[in-house]
Amino acid sequence: MENNKRYTDLGFAKLDMERTKRRGYSEAIYCECKTKEQLLEIFQAFKNESLNVIGTRVSKEQYEYLKSEFPDIKYSAQGRIITLINQEIKKIGEVAVCTGGTGDIPVAEEAALTAEFYGSNVKRYYDIGVSGIHRLFDKIDEIRKANVIIAVAGMEGALCSIITGLVSVPVIAVPTSVGYGTSFKGLSALLTMLNSCAEGMSVVNIDNGFNAGYSANQINRLISGKKE
Amino acid sequence: MENNKRYTDLGFAKLDMERTKRRGYSEAIYCECKTKEQLLEIFQAFKNESLNVIGTRVSKEQYEYLKSEFPDIKYSAQGRIITLINQEIKKIGEVAVCTGGTGDIPVAEEAALTAEFYGSNVKRYYDIGVSGIHRLFDKIDEIRKANVIIAVAGMEGALCSIITGLVSVPVIAVPTSVGYGTSFKGLSALLTMLNSCAEGMSVVNIDNGFNAGYSANQINRLISGKKE
Amino acid sequence: MENNKRYTDLGFAKLDMERTKRRGYSEAIYCECKTKEQLLEIFQAFKNESLNVIGTRVSKEQYEYLKSEFPDIKYSAQGRIITLINQEIKKIGEVAVCTGGTGDIPVAEEAALTAEFYGSNVKRYYDIGVSGIHRLFDKIDEIRKANVIIAVAGMEGALCSIITGLVSVPVIAVPTSVGYGTSFKGLSALLTMLNSCAEGMSVVNIDNGFNAGYSANQINRLISGKKE
Amino acid sequence: MENNKRYTDLGFAKLDMERTKRRGYSEAIYCECKTKEQLLEIFQAFKNESLNVIGTRVSKEQYEYLKSEFPDIKYSAQGRIITLINQEIKKIGEVAVCTGGTGDIPVAEEAALTAEFYGSNVKRYYDIGVSGIHRLFDKIDEIRKANVIIAVAGMEGALCSIITGLVSVPVIAVPTSVGYGTSFKGLSALLTMLNSCAEGMSVVNIDNGFNAGYSANQINRLISGKKE
Amino acid sequence: MENNKRYTDLGFAKLDMERTKRRGYSEAIYCECKTKEQLLEIFQAFKNESLNVIGTRVSKEQYEYLKSEFPDIKYSAQGRIITLINQEIKKIGEVAVCTGGTGDIPVAEEAALTAEFYGSNVKRYYDIGVSGIHRLFDKIDEIRKANVIIAVAGMEGALCSIITGLVSVPVIAVPTSVGYGTSFKGLSALLTMLNSCAEGMSVVNIDNGFNAGYSANQINRLISGKKE
Amino acid sequence: MENNKRYTDLGFAKLDMERTKRRGYSEAIYCECKTKEQLLEIFQAFKNESLNVIGTRVSKEQYEYLKSEFPDIKYSAQGRIITLINQEIKKIGEVAVCTGGTGDIPVAEEAALTAEFYGSNVKRYYDIGVSGIHRLFDKIDEIRKANVIIAVAGMEGALCSIITGLVSVPVIAVPTSVGYGTSFKGLSALLTMLNSCAEGMSVVNIDNGFNAGYSANQINRLISGKKE
Amino acid sequence: MENNKRYTDLGFAKLDMERTKRRGYSEAIYCECKTKEQLLEIFQAFKNESLNVIGTRVSKEQYEYLKSEFPDIKYSAQGRIITLINQEIKKIGEVAVCTGGTGDIPVAEEAALTAEFYGSNVKRYYDIGVSGIHRLFDKIDEIRKANVIIAVAGMEGALCSIITGLVSVPVIAVPTSVGYGTSFKGLSALLTMLNSCAEGMSVVNIDNGFNAGYSANQINRLISGKKE
Amino acid sequence: MENNKRYTDLGFAKLDMERTKRRGYSEAIYCECKTKEQLLEIFQAFKNESLNVIGTRVSKEQYEYLKSEFPDIKYSAQGRIITLINQEIKKIGEVAVCTGGTGDIPVAEEAALTAEFYGSNVKRYYDIGVSGIHRLFDKIDEIRKANVIIAVAGMEGALCSIITGLVSVPVIAVPTSVGYGTSFKGLSALLTMLNSCAEGMSVVNIDNGFNAGYSANQINRLISGKKE
Repeated sequence: MENNKRYTDLGFAKLDMERTKRRGYSEAIYCECKTKEQLLEIFQAFKNESLNVIGTRVSKEQYEYLKSEFPDIKYSAQGRIITLINQEIKKIGEVAVCTGGTGDIPVAEEAALTAEFYGSNVKRYYDIGVSGIHRLFDKIDEIRKANVIIAVAGMEGALCSIITGLVSVPVIAVPTSVGYGTSFKGLSALLTMLNSCAEGMSVVNIDNGFNAGYSANQINRLISGKKE
Repeated sequence: MENNKRYTDLGFAKLDMERTKRRGYSEAIYCECKTKEQLLEIFQAFKNESLNVIGTRVSKEQYEYLKSEFPDIKYSAQGRIITLINQEIKKIGEVAVCTGGTGDIPVAEEAALTAEFYGSNVKRYYDIGVSGIHRLFDKIDEIRKANVIIAVAGMEGALCSIITGLVSVPVIAVPTSVGYGTSFKGLSALLTMLNSCAEGMSVVNIDNGFNAGYSANQINRLISGKKE
Repeated sequence: MENNKRYTDLGFAKLDMERTKRRGYSEAIYCECKTKEQLLEIFQAFKNESLNVIGTRVSKEQYEYLKSEFPDIKYSAQGRIITLINQEIKKIGEVAVCTGGTGDIPVAEEAALTAEFYGSNVKRYYDIGVSGIHRLFDKIDEIRKANVIIAVAGMEGALCSIITGLVSVPVIAVPTSVGYGTSFKGLSALLTMLNSCAEGMSVVNIDNGFNAGYSANQINRLISGKKE
Repeated sequence: MENNKRYTDLGFAKLDMERTKRRGYSEAIYCECKTKEQLLEIFQAFKNESLNVIGTRVSKEQYEYLKSEFPDIKYSAQGRIITLINQEIKKIGEVAVCTGGTGDIPVAEEAALTAEFYGSNVKRYYDIGVSGIHRLFDKIDEIRKANVIIAVAGMEGALCSIITGLVSVPVIAVPTSVGYGTSFKGLSALLTMLNSCAEGMSVVNIDNGFNAGYSANQINRLISGKKE
Repeated sequence: MENNKRYTDLGFAKLDMERTKRRGYSEAIYCECKTKEQLLEIFQAFKNESLNVIGTRVSKEQYEYLKSEFPDIKYSAQGRIITLINQEIKKIGEVAVCTGGTGDIPVAEEAALTAEFYGSNVKRYYDIGVSGIHRLFDKIDEIRKANVIIAVAGMEGALCSIITGLVSVPVIAVPTSVGYGTSFKGLSALLTMLNSCAEGMSVVNIDNGFNAGYSANQINRLISGKKE
Repeated sequence: MENNKRYTDLGFAKLDMERTKRRGYSEAIYCECKTKEQLLEIFQAFKNESLNVIGTRVSKEQYEYLKSEFPDIKYSAQGRIITLINQEIKKIGEVAVCTGGTGDIPVAEEAALTAEFYGSNVKRYYDIGVSGIHRLFDKIDEIRKANVIIAVAGMEGALCSIITGLVSVPVIAVPTSVGYGTSFKGLSALLTMLNSCAEGMSVVNIDNGFNAGYSANQINRLISGKKE
Repeated sequence: MENNKRYTDLGFAKLDMERTKRRGYSEAIYCECKTKEQLLEIFQAFKNESLNVIGTRVSKEQYEYLKSEFPDIKYSAQGRIITLINQEIKKIGEVAVCTGGTGDIPVAEEAALTAEFYGSNVKRYYDIGVSGIHRLFDKIDEIRKANVIIAVAGMEGALCSIITGLVSVPVIAVPTSVGYGTSFKGLSALLTMLNSCAEGMSVVNIDNGFNAGYSANQINRLISGKKE
Repeated sequence: MENNKRYTDLGFAKLDMERTKRRGYSEAIYCECKTKEQLLEIFQAFKNESLNVIGTRVSKEQYEYLKSEFPDIKYSAQGRIITLINQEIKKIGEVAVCTGGTGDIPVAEEAALTAEFYGSNVKRYYDIGVSGIHRLFDKIDEIRKANVIIAVAGMEGALCSIITGLVSVPVIAVPTSVGYGTSFKGLSALLTMLNSCAEGMSVVNIDNGFNAGYSANQINRLISGKKE
């Protein structure tokens, strides 16, 4: 195992050890196509440096394997997120996470847990989609208080335009693969969001709750006066 | 020119003369890929039978050519619709035609003029899209009074879901090719509408104001008690 | 559990309790991405209000779990529909449900059961597709008697155009994902229907029997003089 | 200019002089992306060998340029076909060419003129599409008498399935780019045809009247007992 | 069970009993989305009329279930074809079935068995694709003797163009879903075939060996002088 | 002309007069599908309220027409942006606008001028794409000083990932339609950006410099302590 | 079993025995859609000729079956490659194989093992993607020493452009299907690579490590002076 | 105008002045989206350094404008290439450029002229596509003598597979946008090439003759012993 100041070389992976210095936040581990043994090595390397680690798209099997080695590890089955905290980050500001339906909650949780991990307070507003729009209007004054809003929706994805048209803070839209037929696994929602005529919304990849949470946290903390 | 009771054969076209008996309404002429001379023959054949005629996607040149032969012909440059009335139809009931933006008006006019031609009263509600949703709410009680609603929108097309979620009558959604980039000439709006979670909305082809107007009129007249 | 006059907040879901007042019909539950426990809570909430409930895309496992709690619940394995009736709706008018082939029957049943649930009489005409068109012609006079027709077809989806060209009532076309190769899971049938030159047909999402049944019922009841 | 028994090398083109011996019929010239000067050289080379030539997708300008050099050349503006006959082929058998609408006629003419050039009698049946299906039924007994049927249709392209389901001879389906919105320049019609459940139909490229005419002629002549 | 001279109505299916009279050949049963019980009823109905039956896309389980009821039934696991012969058809003429690779054989067998069932002699030429083109040239004189050629290929599908450019008989091209990445489950091969510059080739749906076999047989028998 | 406190109804358009109060910034006018006469009415209505106006996708003809009426209007031919300032906004903070190539500059200018109109200082870094990456590294320390970065790129769009991986502030990525072949008018660049493994980047529609500039300004001003 | 000098005919496969003479290297066996029995016959045929064999996309089950018959066979579970060496090839020159992430390693191994089998020395550089670009810069001087570079990347695939822009040797880019959402199983990475503005890069099919390894080896050996 | 040793900053462009040192060859100018004035500045900057320049996708107007300033400039109207030679490169080795048809020649010329500019001898073989494959076989022994082959083809693009299967040197395949209908502007040819089962071929963007010529030259010169 090669290790210089800037990255740790495990052969199958080169861990970016200067990420926090360069980018403000530590690297996240995308766990979907890694073996349990690879994850173990990676988490160990971060722990050796006393760095916080967050893993995304973690299966229950992967979690249980790591749990036996790192008893302090935390897992959200819904958000498929694993976190290992070695130095606490103080949460500041506020991010609102909204979903159109119940089926969008797993992606919303990935976003919410990520934003919390990196240092934001998060409020959740779930199942407020446009087929019963009074549910959204009932909450909108509360939602407006956040520094950044994450809007998560599948199917037609119209929720994000509606919210953006009602607020004065940035909105990060996350299309989800919820739906069938012409939802084309999230493509329909993605196109809706990219074509929104409500300015002030930007979009991330389908089901990419992680990037939404990361970006929202980054903006929230900058607004809250924390250039970390 | 062959002519039996059921259709008139012009060689390049076979006019469906029993359409009204079989389907309730006379045939419409899709003018886009027909020559001026072909249109002249077709309109003459309908006039010979004292039938009303409606032509869609008519260019200004086509209109002016026909105008010299049929001085009573009427043309909407915006809706690209031509009509020649030989027997008046009494307008009944009410159809509401709504658009998300100003750019959607040509398609909306095609729909509105078609519904009027076939016998519906029409009310127009233009530029009430979701980026300033109070404009829609200001009109919604009026819109609700129609028997059928046509909702026309390009870009993200979210207007149709919002309206459908607020009313108890059928909504016919028309995606338009307004937009750029990932609007993909109306595909984005079409997908939004097909994936709407607001039940009671059905969809027609991109920019197909004619079919929307035809279908809305058909439903409106049946609801108004006119099985024609 | 928060509950105001307008919706019931279960945290993971906000049930739209004013749906019937606003839209004429109660909310349906899309069951595909909900857990058994979530469904139990939702059905209980509706029962508490003595409302009828319909669930779509229900697995056999979900049904059996709910059955033990709500013995009166009814399930159609073919249509994957669950219904719990707390106040009977009188069926009126008539909706015809047609399919091109045998493989389209599950989607057709979803449509038929939905229309029946919301208050329509339904007649079924299955396997009358265009490869043996005399089967359709044999039934067409009977089909014409309905107030609305639902035409369900996969593969090339040509049935819907043929029927629409022969009748004077609205047709709601449902593409199905039946087929292989370039059927692209229903896309081919969808495009056929959107491009139909037979006016008076509108289209819903691939495999969306529910919306077809809902929309057909809505139109049928309005034609039958029931503004509910 | 190099010239062996098998091909004539013009540098920018290598003319296949053994085509007739190997394949039964002479090479056709696809004119769309060739200059007038290139066409002149090519037609001269064929004339030198006393071979018949057919050019497809010929513009009016290209035709007029060639006309001045080859006064016997014939041009169909509708089918964009040019022919220069140096040895007469006797027409045998029968090919039926049908279209769904008036807009499909240019492609149908390309097919019909090609089949005639290579030696088939052709009968034309235009504008017999499915929105007024009695027009097709009126002609079907006549159509059935052909050895091969070419069915040309744009938009939803349903005509081809209907015809195939009614006859016992091979059908060659040609999708056209007629339509708008989701016709996607012929893609919708193409998919309809590829997914047809009526067996005995095969398909060629969008707007490829030439290949349809060539293939139909080949089959017609083989059935008529002419192995040329 | 309703039964008139023209079709047998089983409720879930309407069997086309005049297919042979109208189209020359009996109906085939697409088995993929039918239950075992439905297949049993269908096969029984055909047997009652002493008609031959062919079933396509038959699973091993479906076969074994039917076998117990109809001991004379024949099954090809490779071609997933089941046949029940009640009146022998004399095979005439010749159809050549070629594949690019070994992986294309299942589709080729579906085509070959279909052509044999309906009355053609079939010769098979497997794994003669373009990466070792001498294998094709070694067989081409033999292939040329057939009345019709079926060319089956996945991946880039270039085999079909090569063969068509070398023969004077019609070629029916069948794209297969063999391949990975940008083969897009057969779309690449389909496009290759539709865009072939070798005239005289027509195309069927991806993996549709059945339609290829049916069409080839139809042409072969017509050429062989059998207008059945 | 109807005018309430909340919007001005011009018939073809309903101007959102409470936009600034609700969203922080005034409405922008999308000029592409509006007539000169419509634009005149719209600009007059805003001027009547002493509001600033920005028009996007303005043609030279539209500009010249408006110029004669509003002599103070400013036009950028490159960015196709028109602005009419009635109350000055003080520019604060800093937004960096970067492009991959020279061809991306028009979209970058749309973004830069929008951000300036709404109140941000902007620095431009053009033609620093990845084929000569030392040009980017030469500027990166300067770019890092901005509060938000807009990265504009066509073709493969890799610039955005590289920049995001090097900075600690939010990046808004704008795909452009520059390129040919498989650039598919910006789709390739869009997909690159959505799939970036560099977290902290979000994406807007192809060529949508306006939304990028709006969003960047919104974030920049919030970070700079201005909740307007 | 037919066997002439040029190919061995096994019925289901025709093995190209003159491949080495014609193309420089022996044929590889694509194992994905072949049965174990077919593979056994094929490997036996090559062994009979004392030829080296390489099999790609080999499952563990296929390997174990062949292992019992050919004990000298070697298997890489990661690269899914099987090799049977009957005559050693001396490795010359150098090929560099780089990946963007850990998930790309299986495709990279397929490439590396193929290049080694056919006669190249290979150096591996894994997980050097653009989100931490200093990892690439740390290795670039070493990478530059190779004669050919294979760059393997999924998701946005930007690595390949960066490398190409930094070196003076040919780069073969391999998109992988790693990713989710709009990665569309490798399509996003493929488009990135095809649209790269860094000249000197060419691309192979998604996940096609084999062709990348083959092509790189071919170029490497030619550069190293070995025209085999 | 800023100018350091590594690049020249013109504001709208940053010219990569160390390209030759880093990559072996000077930068090429993509002229399509640049103004005449921008091109003038760029060419002047290169001339100031006595560097050779090549411009691609140059219109006749752009050429004529530059010609007046740089009388030594050379233009190929067919290949849309402009070159300005300030220091002669000695041509070595051999590259073969082949096309399927006459319509592919413009792209082939772009490739050929690029390879010649950067230092390769080029031989051209045009119109040798697969519909008359004896034309290819007639030339194949000559083609085999090149160090690298560029194969350019539109429509079905099968030429590239055939050539690759017959030679032992690397093949660079260039799909062209020649064709209509399902050629989808070169997509069909691109997919054919990516899916080729003939190993040793790699692919560049549709119509990208420049990159093909650049890559082929790079490989040719390395094989010819010139590491420049």
